[in-house]
Amino acid sequence: MALQPGMKLISTDDHLIEHPRVWLDRLPRKYRDVAPRIVEQPSGRGGGAPAQVWQYEGRRYPYIGLNAVAGKKPEEFGTEPVRYDDMIPGCYDPKSRLVNMDVDGVWGALCFPSFPRFSGTIFLEAEDRELALACVHAYNDFLLDEWCAAAPDRLIPGSILPLWDPQECVREIHRVHAKGAKAVFFPENPVPLGLPSFHTTHWDEVFSAAEETDMPLCMHFGTSGKPPITAPDAPMAVMISLMGCNSMYTTADLLFSPVFHRHPRLKVALSEGGVGWIPYLLERIDGTWEKHRFYQNVNQTVRPSELFRRHIYGCFIDDVHGIANRDAIGINNMTWEADYPHSDSFWPDSRNRAEVVFADVPDDDVAKIVEHNARRLFNFGLDD
Amino acid sequence: MALQPGMKLISTDDHLIEHPRVWLDRLPRKYRDVAPRIVEQPSGRGGGAPAQVWQYEGRRYPYIGLNAVAGKKPEEFGTEPVRYDDMIPGCYDPKSRLVNMDVDGVWGALCFPSFPRFSGTIFLEAEDRELALACVHAYNDFLLDEWCAAAPDRLIPGSILPLWDPQECVREIHRVHAKGAKAVFFPENPVPLGLPSFHTTHWDEVFSAAEETDMPLCMHFGTSGKPPITAPDAPMAVMISLMGCNSMYTTADLLFSPVFHRHPRLKVALSEGGVGWIPYLLERIDGTWEKHRFYQNVNQTVRPSELFRRHIYGCFIDDVHGIANRDAIGINNMTWEADYPHSDSFWPDSRNRAEVVFADVPDDDVAKIVEHNARRLFNFGLDD
Repeated sequence: MALQPGMKLISTDDHLIEHPRVWLDRLPRKYRDVAPRIVEQPSGRGGGAPAQVWQYEGRRYPYIGLNAVAGKKPEEFGTEPVRYDDMIPGCYDPKSRLVNMDVDGVWGALCFPSFPRFSGTIFLEAEDRELALACVHAYNDFLLDEWCAAAPDRLIPGSILPLWDPQECVREIHRVHAKGAKAVFFPENPVPLGLPSFHTTHWDEVFSAAEETDMPLCMHFGTSGKPPITAPDAPMAVMISLMGCNSMYTTADLLFSPVFHRHPRLKVALSEGGVGWIPYLLERIDGTWEKHRFYQNVNQTVRPSELFRRHIYGCFIDDVHGIANRDAIGINNMTWEADYPHSDSFWPDSRNRAEVVFADVPDDDVAKIVEHNARRLFNFGLDD
Repeated sequence: MALQPGMKLISTDDHLIEHPRVWLDRLPRKYRDVAPRIVEQPSGRGGGAPAQVWQYEGRRYPYIGLNAVAGKKPEEFGTEPVRYDDMIPGCYDPKSRLVNMDVDGVWGALCFPSFPRFSGTIFLEAEDRELALACVHAYNDFLLDEWCAAAPDRLIPGSILPLWDPQECVREIHRVHAKGAKAVFFPENPVPLGLPSFHTTHWDEVFSAAEETDMPLCMHFGTSGKPPITAPDAPMAVMISLMGCNSMYTTADLLFSPVFHRHPRLKVALSEGGVGWIPYLLERIDGTWEKHRFYQNVNQTVRPSELFRRHIYGCFIDDVHGIANRDAIGINNMTWEADYPHSDSFWPDSRNRAEVVFADVPDDDVAKIVEHNARRLFNFGLDD
């Protein structure tokens, strides 16, 4: 009953900060002035060191400090942009990351991009689509050739897509899969991004390519670009605590869409969404389906909760209620995450925290949740 | 262990359909042409009987059939407007309602308005504010003098407010309380309605009046006017199954606001929101508060879950997961509902359904959930 020393923790939701030369190192010289690069700008808050921000085409994108707080105490959290020398090197350097993971007791990690946003949607804002496509390729090459190459048995490669062009998405899925990619990052809802919904046929070839390559679509909460904001003057704590609602939206949206009926082998990971809400929501979705399916354009024969168990994976950091209700969620549908280096992470105590929350859980269940489900989901080191 | 025959079911979320003369009977003759009244209009769907719709000032407001489906099978549900003679009389006639409640095994009910919307927000759309105020008074007088007067020991009077004017809200709260009102209907979030948020001082006198009269604010899901719609082409089942997210938004919004710190006796009922999500969300909210309170304008000393237990009441129809996790929710914070005559209702089998879902719950807990919590919350028949 507990997390055993031999179990390797695999985090299905960590984050990397791109180093300043990710794109400059890979794009043709003609793009030097418009490719994403780091520039200095004066600090907005009464002096202090200048901030480092990304500049891409004419636009500037500040970081916020919360994205790289590993090693800070909550009392030190803030929302200011940071400089690279404010971060510990594990944020942006893969060798240092591995050392940080060792300290944390974590074996493997899927890392989401930062500047491109968690599903690469920054490139939807491009003026130059040719450059944007080159930027997507460059990010994925950086990830495969540089970041994950530091430890291919520990770092799971996830790729971004040129979301404005389904044909290019299909090509990129096959290209990165051939180079070793194991996952695809995809928006939790395309509609707020100005893209067609899950209820259209627009994404069919993209989802078929994901099926053919057996790579899950990882839908990180917030990737719709529509965070759960109640009021302009609400403290940010409201939004942070409600982010899981975005994953609930994705769950209902997908389960009542044609997606899983047209793509019976497609897998979706709800990254950082938590799992404690799943028993409630599946009960509610099934109840809605029982009462309201007859007059609506939804599948009439398969219960939505069955679809969920076949296709969707939740992930969580410590979610005590979710762990206690693992049988109602589906023991094969849960994965664990550390969320390094974000503010929800317990780093460098992730393994210690996991020992506490799994204390009363049978070994076999713990092994599935912290390691085996992730290896199966991502086809990652299954022969270990 | 179970629902016992002596326990009186009190539904904290039912709905009434206003009969055609609610306003015409009560407003001065000068308003006859602009007051809310029923008009006939041709059916939109290839013939059939004309529809009956409300007309108020120049605007028309169709009903949808889902609002009055009691007695229909799910296979017959639809979204078309209906006529009064399509409904069973219990929808709009209080004597018939009591007979329908008897059949259903339900003793008491709080009924939300229909044409005014669940918190009276239709009157925010008024061109003539004087007329709108008269309409609010007329609705509340109808409710107290006509609807609930049919059985004051069984029908709980809840009142709407002239939300555009806090001073008038205060006056109306004291007026209806003096006439016997037990609850106030209030939007789950004022912001999408163009009103100031819970994070302002705008509502302080209104909330103080609710405290002084010991009437809970009943915040029905959807009353913000912002339903959880994922995509324009998503089937309505997506929205129906996600409506509880609106109550989650309200919970986080209120718990991180100054409201309960300024109003230590204020009670809020989350009407129709379900309860199965509460353990997950309170864990998430407490975790957010532990990590993120230091740099934010939120209360630094009281855990949000403590505030919840003191101030907020959930309600549910059958929510099996919620009942099983009642201790994590708070056994004193749960109430039961039938949702007559809406499509989520099990009428005429509400009591039978309750017997099933409470089969394994100790008597004392069942009695609290189905009856005593509601009596305490609404100060309703406490001497029974």
